[in-house]
Amino acid sequence: MSENLPPVQTQSQDPDQEHDHDHEALTSPLLPHYQRASNSTSQLAIVGVNVCPIESLDYETAENDFYKQDWRARDKIQNFQYIFMKWLLCFLIGCFVSVVGFCNNLAVENIAGVKFVITSNMMLTGRYEMAFLVFFLSNLVLTLFAAIITTFISPAAAGSGIPEVKAYLNGVDAPGIISLRTLIVKIIGSISAVSSSLLVGKAGPMMHIGACIASLLGQGGSRRYGLTWKWIRLFKNDRDRRDLVTCGSAAGIAAAFRAPVGGVLFALEEMASWWTSGLLWRAFFTTAVVAIILRALIDVCLSGKCGLFGKGGLIMFDVYSANISYHMADVPPVLLLGVVGGIFGSLYNFLLDKVLRVYAIINKKSVTYKIFIACTISIFTSCLLFGLPWLASCQPCPLDSTEDCPTIGRSGNYKKFQCPPGHYNDLASLIFNTNDDAIRNLFSKNTDAEFQHSTMLIFFVTCFILSIISYGVVAPAGLFVPVIVTGASYGRFVGMLFSSRTNLNHGLFAVLGAASFLGGSMRMTVSLCVIILELTNNLLLLPMIMIVLLVSKTVADAFNGNIYDLIMKAKGFPYLEAHVEPYMRQLTVADVVTGPLQVCHGNEKVGNIVHILKTTNHQGFPVIDEPPHSESPVLYGLILRAHLITLLKKRVFLRTPVRIGADAFRHFSADEFAKKGLGNVDKIEDIKLTEEEMEMFLDLHPFTNASPYTVVETMSLAKASTLFREVGLRHLLVIPKRTTGSPVVGILTRHDFMPEHVLGLHPLLQTRRNKLTHVRVTRSSTGLLNSTGRREVKISLSKIPKA
Amino acid sequence: MSENLPPVQTQSQDPDQEHDHDHEALTSPLLPHYQRASNSTSQLAIVGVNVCPIESLDYETAENDFYKQDWRARDKIQNFQYIFMKWLLCFLIGCFVSVVGFCNNLAVENIAGVKFVITSNMMLTGRYEMAFLVFFLSNLVLTLFAAIITTFISPAAAGSGIPEVKAYLNGVDAPGIISLRTLIVKIIGSISAVSSSLLVGKAGPMMHIGACIASLLGQGGSRRYGLTWKWIRLFKNDRDRRDLVTCGSAAGIAAAFRAPVGGVLFALEEMASWWTSGLLWRAFFTTAVVAIILRALIDVCLSGKCGLFGKGGLIMFDVYSANISYHMADVPPVLLLGVVGGIFGSLYNFLLDKVLRVYAIINKKSVTYKIFIACTISIFTSCLLFGLPWLASCQPCPLDSTEDCPTIGRSGNYKKFQCPPGHYNDLASLIFNTNDDAIRNLFSKNTDAEFQHSTMLIFFVTCFILSIISYGVVAPAGLFVPVIVTGASYGRFVGMLFSSRTNLNHGLFAVLGAASFLGGSMRMTVSLCVIILELTNNLLLLPMIMIVLLVSKTVADAFNGNIYDLIMKAKGFPYLEAHVEPYMRQLTVADVVTGPLQVCHGNEKVGNIVHILKTTNHQGFPVIDEPPHSESPVLYGLILRAHLITLLKKRVFLRTPVRIGADAFRHFSADEFAKKGLGNVDKIEDIKLTEEEMEMFLDLHPFTNASPYTVVETMSLAKASTLFREVGLRHLLVIPKRTTGSPVVGILTRHDFMPEHVLGLHPLLQTRRNKLTHVRVTRSSTGLLNSTGRREVKISLSKIPKA
Repeated sequence: MSENLPPVQTQSQDPDQEHDHDHEALTSPLLPHYQRASNSTSQLAIVGVNVCPIESLDYETAENDFYKQDWRARDKIQNFQYIFMKWLLCFLIGCFVSVVGFCNNLAVENIAGVKFVITSNMMLTGRYEMAFLVFFLSNLVLTLFAAIITTFISPAAAGSGIPEVKAYLNGVDAPGIISLRTLIVKIIGSISAVSSSLLVGKAGPMMHIGACIASLLGQGGSRRYGLTWKWIRLFKNDRDRRDLVTCGSAAGIAAAFRAPVGGVLFALEEMASWWTSGLLWRAFFTTAVVAIILRALIDVCLSGKCGLFGKGGLIMFDVYSANISYHMADVPPVLLLGVVGGIFGSLYNFLLDKVLRVYAIINKKSVTYKIFIACTISIFTSCLLFGLPWLASCQPCPLDSTEDCPTIGRSGNYKKFQCPPGHYNDLASLIFNTNDDAIRNLFSKNTDAEFQHSTMLIFFVTCFILSIISYGVVAPAGLFVPVIVTGASYGRFVGMLFSSRTNLNHGLFAVLGAASFLGGSMRMTVSLCVIILELTNNLLLLPMIMIVLLVSKTVADAFNGNIYDLIMKAKGFPYLEAHVEPYMRQLTVADVVTGPLQVCHGNEKVGNIVHILKTTNHQGFPVIDEPPHSESPVLYGLILRAHLITLLKKRVFLRTPVRIGADAFRHFSADEFAKKGLGNVDKIEDIKLTEEEMEMFLDLHPFTNASPYTVVETMSLAKASTLFREVGLRHLLVIPKRTTGSPVVGILTRHDFMPEHVLGLHPLLQTRRNKLTHVRVTRSSTGLLNSTGRREVKISLSKIPKA
Repeated sequence: MSENLPPVQTQSQDPDQEHDHDHEALTSPLLPHYQRASNSTSQLAIVGVNVCPIESLDYETAENDFYKQDWRARDKIQNFQYIFMKWLLCFLIGCFVSVVGFCNNLAVENIAGVKFVITSNMMLTGRYEMAFLVFFLSNLVLTLFAAIITTFISPAAAGSGIPEVKAYLNGVDAPGIISLRTLIVKIIGSISAVSSSLLVGKAGPMMHIGACIASLLGQGGSRRYGLTWKWIRLFKNDRDRRDLVTCGSAAGIAAAFRAPVGGVLFALEEMASWWTSGLLWRAFFTTAVVAIILRALIDVCLSGKCGLFGKGGLIMFDVYSANISYHMADVPPVLLLGVVGGIFGSLYNFLLDKVLRVYAIINKKSVTYKIFIACTISIFTSCLLFGLPWLASCQPCPLDSTEDCPTIGRSGNYKKFQCPPGHYNDLASLIFNTNDDAIRNLFSKNTDAEFQHSTMLIFFVTCFILSIISYGVVAPAGLFVPVIVTGASYGRFVGMLFSSRTNLNHGLFAVLGAASFLGGSMRMTVSLCVIILELTNNLLLLPMIMIVLLVSKTVADAFNGNIYDLIMKAKGFPYLEAHVEPYMRQLTVADVVTGPLQVCHGNEKVGNIVHILKTTNHQGFPVIDEPPHSESPVLYGLILRAHLITLLKKRVFLRTPVRIGADAFRHFSADEFAKKGLGNVDKIEDIKLTEEEMEMFLDLHPFTNASPYTVVETMSLAKASTLFREVGLRHLLVIPKRTTGSPVVGILTRHDFMPEHVLGLHPLLQTRRNKLTHVRVTRSSTGLLNSTGRREVKISLSKIPKA
C-alpha cells in the first residue's frame, strides 16, 4: 500500500525568497535540529482517575453512497419520528435530571441532617467525646464508601466530571466518561461524599449525571438488557449524541442550582464547543422542564413530607431586600474585592492544579493509596470541623433575634456547640454545618453583628485549604460549592473590614465575594452572573456582580487559566481551542503532517485491509482509485475503520475487483453502520477470516465518504486549524499542490493541531515563541515512523505540559 | 484570460451507476430542462428604504506574503496596543451608547410629556377641540420631521435596523447600513417618531445606533474630518469590525431596556452569526459599562433635574411582589395564553410582512409617496388615540387608591379625559399616554379592578392594527415596544376572562401576554426570557415565562418564521443560514458553480488586470502560475479586487514578468491594504493609466492570499455550505478532481449557496422539494454567461421569494 508511495513533496511559503528554487529547497532543510517523527502527542488521558486510550468523535457526516441511499429512503414518518424523538428525549432528560437532582438533595439533607442533629444533641448534653466519635466515624464511613465504589466500580466517576464532559463535547471520546456505571456511582458517590462533610460540591457531579442520562437516553437504554427502541436508531450518531449531552449538562447545572437560564448559559459558555440556535432552544426547553418539575417536587416537600429536607433543601439563597441601594462610595471596596478575589482565585487554580498532579502520581501507585488519601482527608476534615470551633469565643445571643438562640435541631444561625446557655459559637454556626447552610448564613442580611472578624478569617482559611485538598479525593466531587463558600467567607471578611465606609450589608459582600472567587477561578462571565442572580434572587445586584466578575476575571487571567482548562490539560485531553496560536500562521499543513500514509484502493483485497487494520491504529483511510481502474491515481474519499470492520464482519466479498454498485445496499442495513455507544467498538482481532477469503476483494466505493474535507498542502496551518475546529472534523485530508505522485499527502487529526506536537516538530518556534519574531520555515521533508505505523502512546505525568 | 480556459469538466455522484462512464456522462445531461446560467440571485437589497448594491465582507484573513511580513514585523508594543484598544473601544462603545440611550429617553419623555401635559390640561378645562388640534398637529409635525430627515438624509435609517445589522453580522456589506449619517438620523428620527405617538419602539433603533457607534469608533472616527488615530489601524479589517458591531448591538439593547445580560444574549441569540467566548466576554464588559453609566445618570435624574423624565424614564416595569405564588391550577390558562399568543404572533408576522411589501412597492414610486404614507399614518393614529377614549364609559375613582384620581399632570394610572370630576377614563389611561406608561399601567399589580373588559379589547385591537401599519413608516421605528404593549393588553384581557379561575393578578397576565407575543413574533427564548426578567425585576416569574415562551414559539414556528428573518428575506439580503437544506446533500459543488472564470496569472500584464476589473464585478480572482513560469498550471492563490486596485493605484509596475520578492514590501504600507470603512471603495474607473503602463507587468504573488479555502468539485454542496458558513468565507475555490486542464473550476460565493439560486439551477428539486424523494443529479455542464461576465442585478419586489 503506502510503501509504494513516492516521497511526498511538500513546500511552504518563504516570503523573502523566490519560490522557484524548489530543487535547492528540496535538499537543504532549514531546520536542521528537527527530525520529523510520528505524532508525539499522547493518545491517552486520565478519565476520572483512570488512564484510558482516547479517540475522536465523528461529527462529520460520512457522506457515502450507502448513507445517501438510506437518507433518501427516509419518508415523512421517519422525519416526524426524528423531530418528535428529539423533543421527547429533551423532555425525558429534563424529567430524569430533575428527579435525580431532587433525590440527591433530599438524601444529602437527610443523611447529613441526621448526623448533625445527633451530634448537636450530644453536644447540648455535654457528651463532647461521644459527639466527636459519631461525627468522625460517620464521616469516615461515608467517605470510604464513596471512595471504594468509585475506585472499584467506576474510576471515571471521580472528580467533578466537568473537564471530561467538556472534552467530550469538544470531540474527545474516552471510554467510561459516559456510561450507566459512571452514572450510578456518580449519584451514590456524590450523595455520600457530600454528606460526609468533605468540602466538595454537588453541582459538577450533577452536570456529569445530566450528561450521562442524556447520552444513555440517546442510546435508547442499554443494549445489554434489551432496552432498545427502534425509533432511537436515528440518534445513533455522534452529532445527535453531542446535542443531547449538551442539553443534559445544561439540565444538570439547572437542577443543581435551580437556575434554568444559568444552566443553559453555563453549557453554552463553558461546556459546548459547537452551538446552534436550535440547540439553544432545546437546551432551554430541557432546563424549563427541570425548573417546573423541581418546583412541583418542592411544593410536595413544603407540606413537610421530606424529613429534614425543609428550607435547607435546594440551594436558593434568597437575599432580597427591596431597599438595596448603592452609590459611588461603594465602588472602591467592591473593586478591591474583585482584584483580591481574582488574585486568590488564580492562586486557588494554581494550588489545585499542583495538588491534583501530586494526587495523580500517588493514585497511580496502587488502589490502597487512593483509599488511604480519601481516609486521611476525611479524618483531617473531621478534626478541623470539630476542633476549630473551640478556638472561637462564645457570643451572647442577640436580644432582638427573630430566630431561636441558640439553635435547636437542624437549621439555624446560632449553634450552641460548647457554649453556656444564652450564648452561641459563631464559628460552629458556619463550620459545623452543611455547606449549603453555611452559605445561607453568610449570604443572609441583617446579621452584620453575628460574626467576629477572627471567626470569618479562620473559616476562610479553613475553607481555602480544605477545598483544595478535598477535590482530588477519589470520589465524585464538585468545585462550585467549595468556591462559593470560600469566596463568601472572604467577601464577608472584606465587608467587615470596610463596614464603616460603606452602607452595603455584609451579606451582600458575601455574595460579591463569592462572585469574585467564581470569576477568579472559573473565569466565566455571563453564565456565572446569571447563576448568581438566580441563586440570590435579586436583580438589583446585577451591576455590582458584573463589575466584580469582570475585575476578578481580568486580574486572574493575567496569572493562569480557567480551572477546568487546567485540569483538562493536566489530564491530557487533546482539547481543540477555538483560537489559533500565532506561530501557526508561519507554518503550512505540510510542515506538520506526518506519514507514511496508509491508503486503500477502491477495490481492495481483503487481506490487505486486514493487514492495514492490524498494523495501524488509524481510524480513517484515504481511498484511492489507481490505474487500471482510472487513468491516474485519484482520491475517491475516506473510509472509517469502523466501517471497514463492519464490511469484514459481513463477509460480502467479491472474487474479482469489480464495482458492485447498488447491489451493495441489499446486504446491509443502516444500523450496522451506525455509531455504536461509547466504548462499544468492534475489534479487528475478533474477526477470523479464511485464507480463501483473504484473497478475495471488497468494493469500498459505496461505503467511502466521497466528500471528505481537504486542504492543499500549502495551506497555512492556522487556516487549516480554523477549518478543523469550526466544522468539527476528525480527519482532514491534505492534498498535494502539484499532481505528480499520490493524490493525497497525509491526514491531519486532532493531535496534529496540538501545540505540543507542532512545537515538538519545530523546536525553534518554541524558543522564539514569546518573541514573536520571524521564524523561517521553508521546507521540511516527510518523516519516519516506526515499523508498525503505530503512534507512540506513552504518558508520564511529569511530561504533561504545564498550563 | 478566462477565454483561454478549456471547458471545465465537472462530475458528481451517482450512487446507482458505475462511475467510470465519464465519456457518456460528459455528453448526456440528465437534467435536460436545465440551462446553466449565471447566478440569478439578486445582488441588490433594500437597506432601510433604499435599494443598494450589496457585497460580502472579508472575514477570511488574506494570508499573503505582504500580510505575513507585516504581521511578523509587529512588536510587543503593537500587540499591547491591539489588546488595549480592543478594551478601550468596548469601554467607549458602552459610554457612548449609554449616554445616547439616556438622552434619547430624556428627549422622548420631555417632548411627549409636554405634549400630553398641555393637551391634558386643555381637556381638564374642557377645550377638547383645541386639545385635539394641538395633539394632532404636534404629532404630524414630529412624524413629518422624522420622515423628511430619513428620506432625504439617510434612507438606510428607516425601520428598526435589526434586519440590516443582522445581515451585516452575517457578512453582508451594504453601503449606508452603518455610517455617521445613519447614526445621526437614527438618533433624531427615533426621538421624534416615538414622541409623535406613533406606535413604534426605540429598542430596535437603539440597537442600530449601538452598531453604528461601534463601527465608527472602530474606524477611528471619520477620515473626512481628520479624526483618525494611528492605533486604530489594527482594527481596519472586517473581523474586528464585526466583533465591535456585535458589542455595539448588545450595548444598544442593554441601553434600551436597561437589561445588560439580556442585551448580550440578544446579540448572541438573534444578531451574531459567529461567536467566540472572547467576544462574549467583551460584549458582557460593554453592557456592564452601559448598566453602570445608566445607573449613574439615573441617580442624577432622581434629584429632579431632568424635567419630565422621572420614574417614567427608562423602561423598568418593576412588578415585584414578594408573595407571588402559583400552582398547578394556574397552568392551563397560562398554556392557553401561550398557544393563542403564538397564533397571534405568527399572524402578526404574516400581516407585517405583507404590509411591508405593499409599502415597499409604494415607496419605490416617489419620495412624495413616502412622506404621504407617513402623514396618513400619523393622522390616522392621532384620530384613533384621541377618538377611541370617547367610546369608553367613565369609571368612578376607587376610594382606596394611593394615587391621585383623576391624575393630574404627567404620569398616572387614572386619566380624566372627558370624564366628570371623581371619574376617570380607563381607555384614555392606556391609549392617551406614552407607550412606556401604557405598559407600566398594564403590568402594574393591584389594579385588577381598574380596567373594563371592553377597554382592554379595544386597546388590544388598536395596538395590533397600529403596530402593523406603523412599522413601515419611513422613519426609525422599532418593533419591541409595539409587540410588548400589544401582548400585554392581550394578556391582561385573557387574565380578565380567567380571573375567577386563577389567583394570578392581571399584571402578571399582562407580563405573560407580552412574553407570548414576543415569543410568537421574534422567536427567541433565552434572551427574551432574560430581557423580560430584567424588565420586570422578578425572578420568581421565571418558570412561567419559560413555559409561555416555549409554547408560543413552538406554535408560531408551525406557521412562519421569525419576524426579522421575514423582513430580511423580503429586503433581499443573502443571509447564510447555519443549517443545510436537505437537497444540498444530493448536489455537488460542481452542480452549482457558475462560470466562466476570470483568472489572473502570477505575473500579469497591467492591461489584462484593468480589463478584468472593468469587465467583471467579481471581488476575487484566482491567481494561476502557468508555463513557462511553472511546469504545469498551478493554483497559487486568490487575490482580492480591492488589493488589485491598490496595486494599480501605486503604479509599481515591472517591465518584464519577473518575481520581485521582498522588494515589493518597500513600496507599500499595510494601511494601503487595510479594508476601508463601509462604502469607501476605490473604483477601477478612477484609475487612469498610460498606454505604456498598460503594457507593463505586475507581480501578484506577494499580494495573493496563498491559503484560500478550497473544495474538490465532487464535494457535496451541503458540506461545502457548512464550510463556507462556519469559517465565514467570501470566496471558496473549487478545484478539479482530475488534473488535466485548469487547476481551478470556479469560485463559490455567498450567492451560490442561496436556495433560490440552487433551486433555480435545478428546478426538479423545487418540485420534489417537499417530497424528500430521490433526485438524481448526475451531471451538468458548465453554462453560459453574458458577454461581460457580469451577473444579472435586477430586482423586482414581486419576485422576492416568499418566506
